[in-house]
Amino acid sequence: MNKKALVVLSGGQDSTTCLFWAIDRFGKENVSAVGFDYGQRHIKELECASGICKDAGIEYTVINTPIINELSANALTRAEIKVDTQKPEGTPPNTLVEGRNLLFLSYAAIWAKTHDIQNLVTGVCETDFSGYPDCRDIFVKSLNVTLNLAMDYDFCIHTPLMWLTKAQTWELADKLGVIDIVYNKTLTCYNGIAGEGCGSCPACNLRRRGYEEYVKMKN
Amino acid sequence: MNKKALVVLSGGQDSTTCLFWAIDRFGKENVSAVGFDYGQRHIKELECASGICKDAGIEYTVINTPIINELSANALTRAEIKVDTQKPEGTPPNTLVEGRNLLFLSYAAIWAKTHDIQNLVTGVCETDFSGYPDCRDIFVKSLNVTLNLAMDYDFCIHTPLMWLTKAQTWELADKLGVIDIVYNKTLTCYNGIAGEGCGSCPACNLRRRGYEEYVKMKN
Repeated sequence: MNKKALVVLSGGQDSTTCLFWAIDRFGKENVSAVGFDYGQRHIKELECASGICKDAGIEYTVINTPIINELSANALTRAEIKVDTQKPEGTPPNTLVEGRNLLFLSYAAIWAKTHDIQNLVTGVCETDFSGYPDCRDIFVKSLNVTLNLAMDYDFCIHTPLMWLTKAQTWELADKLGVIDIVYNKTLTCYNGIAGEGCGSCPACNLRRRGYEEYVKMKN
Repeated sequence: MNKKALVVLSGGQDSTTCLFWAIDRFGKENVSAVGFDYGQRHIKELECASGICKDAGIEYTVINTPIINELSANALTRAEIKVDTQKPEGTPPNTLVEGRNLLFLSYAAIWAKTHDIQNLVTGVCETDFSGYPDCRDIFVKSLNVTLNLAMDYDFCIHTPLMWLTKAQTWELADKLGVIDIVYNKTLTCYNGIAGEGCGSCPACNLRRRGYEEYVKMKN
């Protein structure tokens, strides 16, 4: 395996933490990042990602993929669908973009191979798994095999957050010396507000609870 | 498994034969088809596909996916790259579109799930395998598992041509009663000429040799 790594970077807490994990693991000179513009509700997350990369001296490429919005309707890509404030029982929340990580990681892999990059880094996480099947470890492992067969190439998909709680993800950012960047510069909020966010959507609640838990752990 | 089936239809010999295989297997009322406009050299193949579906009374949807052209450069999508007339030794021909079947089948699966379709039909074929890793049976089987995990859904990918020679594919079209349609209405030629084609590119040679072999077998 070579040392070159490509991070799938959305500009949220998780993928940003992964960016700095990759810089620590592979060396800044070996890391680059890609993001995807798929008509998501808040294009501002790509601006966050771009600013974070600029500050860190990392090359960031945004790939346009409106097809994701064409293929399935959901609350993150269609302004007319309201985000669920409570997770529905027994079904994924209506923020599910069917096959999103499947496509993101496939695009990233094609891009990576054409740039001689073998390591792919993604912030998917099973621990806060809220009904998104393509965030599970078994899916990522299966996709790794499929991508290697599809392109006759040895990719290694890294998922540094797979088994971490949100509190442990904050801890990782702190150990990497970037907790201030993650706290202030990333966008996780479904209502498109960077840093602390709107404070009331499910993503903000998850993020704040994790942060408070980490602060408690630390003290 | 339900009986609904989605055929990935490019308008070439192989996928057109698969369309009629699917109609025979699942019943016309259960079959629909998708094609992809990825900036390929000969958009005429989608017109062939559309005409064939219209005549057969099958719904055909074209999905735009310019991202495939953005992600990797090759002779089928870039007019400035000349198609190899001879297959190079040890490497795939420069008509390889990296990850193409990976993406086509992933898009088809997302589309299928949103339309309650469980069966996917593709004309990929290992027998005339010319260096395209994502035409191999092991890739398709691995992708089937990955897609099922990605969307928590039971897809079944059918590859009726996987182990057939080109002559046997003509034989299948004949058995299905559609050899005239396949002979006259499909486009396989790299130079964009439907039916018998230009007669000199690798795709035309392969197609003609297969047809001649089938005619010999039959007589």
